[in-house]
Amino acid sequence: MKEKQIALALLVNNNPGVLSRIAGLFARRGYNIDTITAGATNDPNYTRITVAVTGDDDILEQIRKQIGKLEDVVKIIELYDKESVCRELTLVKVRASKKEKQEIIAIADIFRAKIVDVGPEALMIELTGNLSKIDAFLKLLEDFEIIEMVRTGLTGLARGSVGIKELINS
Amino acid sequence: MKEKQIALALLVNNNPGVLSRIAGLFARRGYNIDTITAGATNDPNYTRITVAVTGDDDILEQIRKQIGKLEDVVKIIELYDKESVCRELTLVKVRASKKEKQEIIAIADIFRAKIVDVGPEALMIELTGNLSKIDAFLKLLEDFEIIEMVRTGLTGLARGSVGIKELINS
Repeated sequence: MKEKQIALALLVNNNPGVLSRIAGLFARRGYNIDTITAGATNDPNYTRITVAVTGDDDILEQIRKQIGKLEDVVKIIELYDKESVCRELTLVKVRASKKEKQEIIAIADIFRAKIVDVGPEALMIELTGNLSKIDAFLKLLEDFEIIEMVRTGLTGLARGSVGIKELINS
Repeated sequence: MKEKQIALALLVNNNPGVLSRIAGLFARRGYNIDTITAGATNDPNYTRITVAVTGDDDILEQIRKQIGKLEDVVKIIELYDKESVCRELTLVKVRASKKEKQEIIAIADIFRAKIVDVGPEALMIELTGNLSKIDAFLKLLEDFEIIEMVRTGLTGLARGSVGIKELINS
């Protein structure tokens, strides 16, 4: 079966063990977790976790079910491509001579990336976007020496005027 | 002792169990994990994890030591405020009438936030920044109804031209 990537948004009780339980489930079952992000919401009772995961339809259905059964997971929804906004943030440090700096700044401009640090031998760039934008940007930087980079992992919200909390009992 | 927040950058082997082990350590010991992000690097052997954590000096020293002992954790460094760039991404969905939309767009402009979705009853805003910028932005939005929001958690890189991998044996 064909593999695809999906993004799942979870609303979970703000208890210390919940992230460990979710990460443990993936590790035990050998599911391929692409990224996971966890952050506060405007309600201190809840944390929101976004998981990007790759698999075929059967695996993805299993993952949805297994996560849904975990303690402290209050709601799980899939963030469908056209019905949601998904974003990731990346910071990239690139080794650059004076001439290379100009080239890199030109590439950054095209992607509306920000130069967040400049040193004698290196530039640091911040870029926000969906996965394909970030991948395209990193591809262009392959001509240079990437010293190090870091990515937050995917986060996202469904479009429209309904929040995940309103879906708890549906 | 006074509590403070620090950000730790971890370079870990790209093995499925490592995130679960880190999250489990925090849960078991009752350490207060503020955010955790995990993402790919430009080397497929490694994943980079950024942990923001609050505690007094003793607790923070314990956390550094305990994480450093975990299997698959290759390197751990602290991202000091003035010597690193730390960023978080947030998406916020706000309920807004026509008039409120104008007010929200004005606030977004000041923070250089992006409007990423507009519906009849709601706006979605994307903002990137350090924690204090994001907190200040969310404070201004308290005058409106936040339908839902999501944050990636903190990620960061040290300034300069050295990468975390070069520090492995130091």
